[in-house]
Amino acid sequence: MVTARIVCFGELLLRLTAPERELLLQSPRLEARFGGAEANVAASLAVLGHDSAMVSTLPDNAIGRAGVGELRRLGVDTRGIRTAEGRVGLYFLAVGALQRPSEILYDRAGSAFACAAADAYDWPALLDGAHWLHLSGITLAVSADAARAARAAVHAAREHGTRISFDCNYRSKVWGNRADEAPALLRELAAEADLLFGNDRDIALMLGLPFPQQPTIQRFRAAAAAAFAAWPRLRYMAATERGHDSVDHQQLAGLMASRDGLHQTRRYSLNGIVDRIGAGDAFAAGLLHGLLRGMDEAATLDFAVACACLKHSLAGDVNQLREADMLTFLAEEGLDVRR
Amino acid sequence: MVTARIVCFGELLLRLTAPERELLLQSPRLEARFGGAEANVAASLAVLGHDSAMVSTLPDNAIGRAGVGELRRLGVDTRGIRTAEGRVGLYFLAVGALQRPSEILYDRAGSAFACAAADAYDWPALLDGAHWLHLSGITLAVSADAARAARAAVHAAREHGTRISFDCNYRSKVWGNRADEAPALLRELAAEADLLFGNDRDIALMLGLPFPQQPTIQRFRAAAAAAFAAWPRLRYMAATERGHDSVDHQQLAGLMASRDGLHQTRRYSLNGIVDRIGAGDAFAAGLLHGLLRGMDEAATLDFAVACACLKHSLAGDVNQLREADMLTFLAEEGLDVRR
Amino acid sequence: MVTARIVCFGELLLRLTAPERELLLQSPRLEARFGGAEANVAASLAVLGHDSAMVSTLPDNAIGRAGVGELRRLGVDTRGIRTAEGRVGLYFLAVGALQRPSEILYDRAGSAFACAAADAYDWPALLDGAHWLHLSGITLAVSADAARAARAAVHAAREHGTRISFDCNYRSKVWGNRADEAPALLRELAAEADLLFGNDRDIALMLGLPFPQQPTIQRFRAAAAAAFAAWPRLRYMAATERGHDSVDHQQLAGLMASRDGLHQTRRYSLNGIVDRIGAGDAFAAGLLHGLLRGMDEAATLDFAVACACLKHSLAGDVNQLREADMLTFLAEEGLDVRR
Amino acid sequence: MVTARIVCFGELLLRLTAPERELLLQSPRLEARFGGAEANVAASLAVLGHDSAMVSTLPDNAIGRAGVGELRRLGVDTRGIRTAEGRVGLYFLAVGALQRPSEILYDRAGSAFACAAADAYDWPALLDGAHWLHLSGITLAVSADAARAARAAVHAAREHGTRISFDCNYRSKVWGNRADEAPALLRELAAEADLLFGNDRDIALMLGLPFPQQPTIQRFRAAAAAAFAAWPRLRYMAATERGHDSVDHQQLAGLMASRDGLHQTRRYSLNGIVDRIGAGDAFAAGLLHGLLRGMDEAATLDFAVACACLKHSLAGDVNQLREADMLTFLAEEGLDVRR
Amino acid sequence: MVTARIVCFGELLLRLTAPERELLLQSPRLEARFGGAEANVAASLAVLGHDSAMVSTLPDNAIGRAGVGELRRLGVDTRGIRTAEGRVGLYFLAVGALQRPSEILYDRAGSAFACAAADAYDWPALLDGAHWLHLSGITLAVSADAARAARAAVHAAREHGTRISFDCNYRSKVWGNRADEAPALLRELAAEADLLFGNDRDIALMLGLPFPQQPTIQRFRAAAAAAFAAWPRLRYMAATERGHDSVDHQQLAGLMASRDGLHQTRRYSLNGIVDRIGAGDAFAAGLLHGLLRGMDEAATLDFAVACACLKHSLAGDVNQLREADMLTFLAEEGLDVRR
Amino acid sequence: MVTARIVCFGELLLRLTAPERELLLQSPRLEARFGGAEANVAASLAVLGHDSAMVSTLPDNAIGRAGVGELRRLGVDTRGIRTAEGRVGLYFLAVGALQRPSEILYDRAGSAFACAAADAYDWPALLDGAHWLHLSGITLAVSADAARAARAAVHAAREHGTRISFDCNYRSKVWGNRADEAPALLRELAAEADLLFGNDRDIALMLGLPFPQQPTIQRFRAAAAAAFAAWPRLRYMAATERGHDSVDHQQLAGLMASRDGLHQTRRYSLNGIVDRIGAGDAFAAGLLHGLLRGMDEAATLDFAVACACLKHSLAGDVNQLREADMLTFLAEEGLDVRR
Repeated sequence: MVTARIVCFGELLLRLTAPERELLLQSPRLEARFGGAEANVAASLAVLGHDSAMVSTLPDNAIGRAGVGELRRLGVDTRGIRTAEGRVGLYFLAVGALQRPSEILYDRAGSAFACAAADAYDWPALLDGAHWLHLSGITLAVSADAARAARAAVHAAREHGTRISFDCNYRSKVWGNRADEAPALLRELAAEADLLFGNDRDIALMLGLPFPQQPTIQRFRAAAAAAFAAWPRLRYMAATERGHDSVDHQQLAGLMASRDGLHQTRRYSLNGIVDRIGAGDAFAAGLLHGLLRGMDEAATLDFAVACACLKHSLAGDVNQLREADMLTFLAEEGLDVRR
Repeated sequence: MVTARIVCFGELLLRLTAPERELLLQSPRLEARFGGAEANVAASLAVLGHDSAMVSTLPDNAIGRAGVGELRRLGVDTRGIRTAEGRVGLYFLAVGALQRPSEILYDRAGSAFACAAADAYDWPALLDGAHWLHLSGITLAVSADAARAARAAVHAAREHGTRISFDCNYRSKVWGNRADEAPALLRELAAEADLLFGNDRDIALMLGLPFPQQPTIQRFRAAAAAAFAAWPRLRYMAATERGHDSVDHQQLAGLMASRDGLHQTRRYSLNGIVDRIGAGDAFAAGLLHGLLRGMDEAATLDFAVACACLKHSLAGDVNQLREADMLTFLAEEGLDVRR
Repeated sequence: MVTARIVCFGELLLRLTAPERELLLQSPRLEARFGGAEANVAASLAVLGHDSAMVSTLPDNAIGRAGVGELRRLGVDTRGIRTAEGRVGLYFLAVGALQRPSEILYDRAGSAFACAAADAYDWPALLDGAHWLHLSGITLAVSADAARAARAAVHAAREHGTRISFDCNYRSKVWGNRADEAPALLRELAAEADLLFGNDRDIALMLGLPFPQQPTIQRFRAAAAAAFAAWPRLRYMAATERGHDSVDHQQLAGLMASRDGLHQTRRYSLNGIVDRIGAGDAFAAGLLHGLLRGMDEAATLDFAVACACLKHSLAGDVNQLREADMLTFLAEEGLDVRR
Repeated sequence: MVTARIVCFGELLLRLTAPERELLLQSPRLEARFGGAEANVAASLAVLGHDSAMVSTLPDNAIGRAGVGELRRLGVDTRGIRTAEGRVGLYFLAVGALQRPSEILYDRAGSAFACAAADAYDWPALLDGAHWLHLSGITLAVSADAARAARAAVHAAREHGTRISFDCNYRSKVWGNRADEAPALLRELAAEADLLFGNDRDIALMLGLPFPQQPTIQRFRAAAAAAFAAWPRLRYMAATERGHDSVDHQQLAGLMASRDGLHQTRRYSLNGIVDRIGAGDAFAAGLLHGLLRGMDEAATLDFAVACACLKHSLAGDVNQLREADMLTFLAEEGLDVRR
Repeated sequence: MVTARIVCFGELLLRLTAPERELLLQSPRLEARFGGAEANVAASLAVLGHDSAMVSTLPDNAIGRAGVGELRRLGVDTRGIRTAEGRVGLYFLAVGALQRPSEILYDRAGSAFACAAADAYDWPALLDGAHWLHLSGITLAVSADAARAARAAVHAAREHGTRISFDCNYRSKVWGNRADEAPALLRELAAEADLLFGNDRDIALMLGLPFPQQPTIQRFRAAAAAAFAAWPRLRYMAATERGHDSVDHQQLAGLMASRDGLHQTRRYSLNGIVDRIGAGDAFAAGLLHGLLRGMDEAATLDFAVACACLKHSLAGDVNQLREADMLTFLAEEGLDVRR
Repeated sequence: MVTARIVCFGELLLRLTAPERELLLQSPRLEARFGGAEANVAASLAVLGHDSAMVSTLPDNAIGRAGVGELRRLGVDTRGIRTAEGRVGLYFLAVGALQRPSEILYDRAGSAFACAAADAYDWPALLDGAHWLHLSGITLAVSADAARAARAAVHAAREHGTRISFDCNYRSKVWGNRADEAPALLRELAAEADLLFGNDRDIALMLGLPFPQQPTIQRFRAAAAAAFAAWPRLRYMAATERGHDSVDHQQLAGLMASRDGLHQTRRYSLNGIVDRIGAGDAFAAGLLHGLLRGMDEAATLDFAVACACLKHSLAGDVNQLREADMLTFLAEEGLDVRR
């Protein structure tokens, strides 16, 4: 099987989670895993059989090395992770329940990644052999330096002929008091993307346009039309659509637009969610997988939504399931114990 | 913000819970937390910003001191907890699932609290500066001494001008073979209450009247009318109304009557309950909070029900959430991860 | 209360489960319990008050002795468990969630049980005083030796006048490349059974007949008719019928046919399943309990389904609840905390 | 191998231990195991291959049944454990370290065992077939009723021809305010014993005599002489002698006197103790094992000390090792990994 | 008992420890406790019965509030902890073993405390009623702002007549690239101290003098002489002296000089250390306790060393033992289980 | 830094350890890690900065993939691990204490590795670029097929010019009933080795010669002389020498002979061992590291012993420390907390 090389650029974070749906520090214990939007995509693509590589900056201390090791365990090429002084960014997570939403407390200011200069990365070498570069709006939000580095990556990719996948991933807590810079920064990267992960709210933020249409599919259609009009390079725009009965019971569908049309999947019921974090990254990885495997658009979107749905059944940020698991999900081949 | 002082009188118990919905001692481990109806109210009020104080009796040993420390951690004034010989009351809890109900095994006979003489408490000093005294029918059930102490507290509060909040909290396992004394003892305290937590079954027990009305709201209306008729001091009567699909999936609504009318909240679906214990105490604290903050009756009841509902999402006896969390719940402002 | 003696023959396995619905080895910890279809029946019958005995083979090492001790803890007579060289069979379990099915990875090849010769068991002595012999198709699948031992057991039971309960329990992963031998081996034991646990798929496999009827009840009726026609000794055939909304949310009903007619229970909703493994064994034990206690057929089936349903609320393979728990379930006497 | 039947009479307690040498409730978790001096002896004898039986009283609730199951798991005959109203006695344990001693907090007042009337036990039936009755001074301390029951047991054993093993086991916290009754009560049982576990302090307490000799061996010799003089039935008196460098580093030797002479073992260094509780009970079981197996006095004492020493390497109250493990210890056959 | 009020000023940190002596993130779990040199002193003094108060800055988020709650649990007056934007400082700890030293990885840059302006604290109000102000050199190292705040505190204490206790607590990893400022900053605070915790290396660093004497006692004597000469306010200088056989096996003695002479305790062997962090803070609290209780100098030093030694037996940063525990240690009253 | 490529051939095992020094299954939990003599060497060399590769056979199931991922996490090149039908070999470990030795219970019969045919490995490709091939006598013991595969590997290495490192690693439980084949099989590989890990007992077994000399160093000298005489290719022979005070307290020294002479290190005291498994593999990796880095013989042996000693301070089979940690150990630069 021909494998593609995908380079993901972003921050790897140590995630510290309160156990068993407790509030933070209700018990004197935290579960420690690694995550981060782009790293989640890299890891999921590696598990799906691709040659995925992570580009990032981490300190050369026990936490940073553990993060690199975890990505390596999952099969990600970590040679592009440089070391530098500084800290590992953290996020604390209290998993919600019922009508109590999960809460993330970011503690990532001053991380080695956030402090890395824009020119710290040797993009021509890092992108050598890469078919896709994946990055997200979080990196733009992390720091001005990180945003500059992301721009440099995108421009190098353009020169190098590497396709660009960009996930808007708007997180208000990360943008903090730099929120007014968000539209311009996001827009600049969206303009270079072949594949854009975003919904009507993202497009509205970037283009300053309202999308009052109902239902969701019409809003997405209008937003995609605006995006395709604004950014001539753009080929695909995709998003998940989420409904909530409660924190543990949600519904998920997928939407994807190309210049040729629009696809929407059925709406899956997710009843008894284990861990919702990283579902969007699983979706992104699944969509890239579909495109790279040459699936048609509808099958690609179905596969991506299967990834996103099944991620909710897994602890941790990363969808660690393999292609066959998603195909079984789509085939609805039975939910009883496999034995 | 002006804060009120609320004094809660009752027993603090060590709660020993089988982990992960196992039966008791299926694994050789118990989770240890503290609870108790009145302490739960005190702790929740402290978290909500009030000056709440606990009056109780505990032995001066490692378990008793840990209980005091836990209340102090939550912000409760524990100077009113006296020490005496004896044991700390316990309860073992096996959390149920599906159609297997949760089971409590009380082990509280002979506790320092149960053995404390009625005159062990210096009520004039303990009630100094207090706006409310909160107690519950459990204390009446614990022992004859405890019942006498509760009566002494209530009478001192009356003399002192402290308002009285009384939660009937009928627990057949605690009353045990003193069950026939329950109606008279409960009635005596209900007669002194400004605020009574109880439903039609509680009123029926105390007043010896049947409430055969349908639906629940009519039974509650009739019971409240009987209560207001019987007890001239009573200003408010409140209760939760609970429906069960299974142990993990229930519904909750709130009811409150004043001499001016009746309020009922919408019925909330609780799908995927983490810990149901203490929901009634969260409701009581929420209701006191509403009254103390000067909310109108409907808003007070809504707030109390929000407390009760969200308590189901939290491990342990105590609603440790803050006012903003309940207001978000009531505003239905979104169930997705906050980040 | 007169108790009956039931002898169960089969393999005891060490079950190694990934914690908290993780994938296998996502965290470096496995929960270790013992299980096995026939041992689960023996344990459940012991908890229900019967004189149940296990006949098996285990090595005399720390794992084997722990397994014997666990059965003894549950009240099973373990004197019929012989020791021999070899290993303890294992199974690894990753508990699923949402639409990700639970997965069992068997690691039982070459176990002391699988390697035990057919004549290793002194059946006349082992069946002395036994009213029932219970075994399952898994033993036929484990190895040719185990299958021969099962046949020897059945023939000894026939000579000894012990009734035979046989659970088809078809597991494709255990049969592996001996799957083509399955129909004949299963058929031989089914032909000797007084009580057969199996559904239309099992009968179809054994008799080579199709059962295309709809709905399930008609398929079961037709299959039972075929079974009663084929096997004159057969008195009862029973099965559970399962529906899946997701891994955590299923429905369960019970079906039982005798030569006099057919019974079907109501369909119970299981919403928030803790552990689905062993539900069929709980059903078998419940059904045997009903027959042994002289319940009528409908009550017997109701009791068995109550066992199967409540098993889903318990961690581990074994239904450790007592008769009163099942009767409470059937009486629908309330799901709130018992206190 | 001929096995002897030993009946042990005493209380089974739920032991709740703070994890990892923490203080009690420093973390919200307790490790739950069962223990009790006489039950530890019964369990250890069962593991050593004897027919040991426990006589006690426990409530018929989840905790009581779990205790019975645990003894059964270890191979103890539990049919002599009667059920009665009441609670299970508890003890909380904070394991010490360095120069911080381990602390036991007893919570056993009012237990079902303590409240059982002296005539609750049918001793002729319970002692049927028994070669030895083992009991300890703790039972005398638990309550006046328990003391009367112990006396009844001893008198029945005398009539029945069952030998008596009595461990003085003086625990000041259990005697509490009944301490002044201790000498007479202990003396009465010591007077009936064939085998007495006690040291010079125990004899001094019972006989009111000082033993100022140095070193320990001379004190023990003098105390044994006094004991043999006072109690004509007594055949053996045994004790461990313990030295402390710190909580984790101790030394242990064994002493045994018969009417023919005195034995003392070498002094073993215990460096890195896992759990010291129950070492005396392991010693008692080991000594009974040696006598029952017909070892000579020196070998019996060696074996008993090996049991006591190795118990320090095991978590929980009970020495779960087998005879071969003790013989390996005595043979000093190597401390490296067995593989 | 008259209690003194001691105000401690410094940073409260969240400590994240790898479990069971593993390397950081070897398992996906961290134990979470709070610590910090001055907070440890405050907590220990509160447990010893004093009115201790903490002055610090923490963010008003879940982590900061948990830290405040933990201090409150231990009895510390936390009203002097202000809230501000920023993060909670962290430290990761891998506990060593054998010859592998424990490693601390600080992650405290940019904390709310480090960023708090020197004038953020209202010292006259905060020191109202305080008999002692305790602070340490760590605060000088944390940031220039924190150092200025410490100086302001000391000057306010001088004006207010509050005595000053200063622990040099030199940590090279915290000073980082500000290490060249350390001597002058430390010297300035030492010059104001009534009580100085430091050894010859600290005095050498501050005064630029060599202390080549042997053995330790002579070096300490010479350093104390230099300190008393340099700083006229100084009344006491104290330190622990530590020897290492391995990470788990150390020795500890105490040294204290006054203008009248020198005291040295015996050297205690610590064999099987549970947690060495915070021993110096336990020593400081013990010494303050002795002075406040009016013990003589030798008894004060003995008590302080007892605190330091016993801290090694406790998990977490804080000596949570009470006065009686230290007195038992000093009386060498037995290391066997207390029962 | 020039890195060498070392290929390690052997079996990767899942290690299942009872927690906290309990006996196996005393608690229902097992800690799961991966290990295996040759994999431990490969992992340690990767952490030390070398290009190490593992050649083995594992099934393509969740356990096998987890093992590969774990090696990858540690930096080992796992592309040489082939997949095949079968199981993952296991070993159960009960960690001892005091005088109770640790016990390993192997459960590795019938593993995919043991069943792999000798010609399953493409050695010319696998050894391409390799400077060393490391294997051990365990592979010879696992199965006749594995032994043939090891021989094929060695012969390919000889042809390819790859140096050979062979660790005798005699494990009687693995050889089982093939023990009489051991001398010849071991001798054949020893004859090809450049570097042999073994002591006088290994040489005695292989050459059938007695080494009665005292002390150890003389026995090692004589054995080395015999080895150099027997096997002309041999350049180095090395071993550790271990003394035991108890399971937790041991001593370790290193011995190495070349044709030019003999080296012996000082004897290190290991007091408070965390995990002794894998110390020999850490020694082997350290010795290879020294040779590869061009250290002189004495420094190489010192480094190897440092690796072996520090491994005892780490949980799990693998020495995960880095070169600087061993140099610090050798420099004896301080055992206090690094902060």
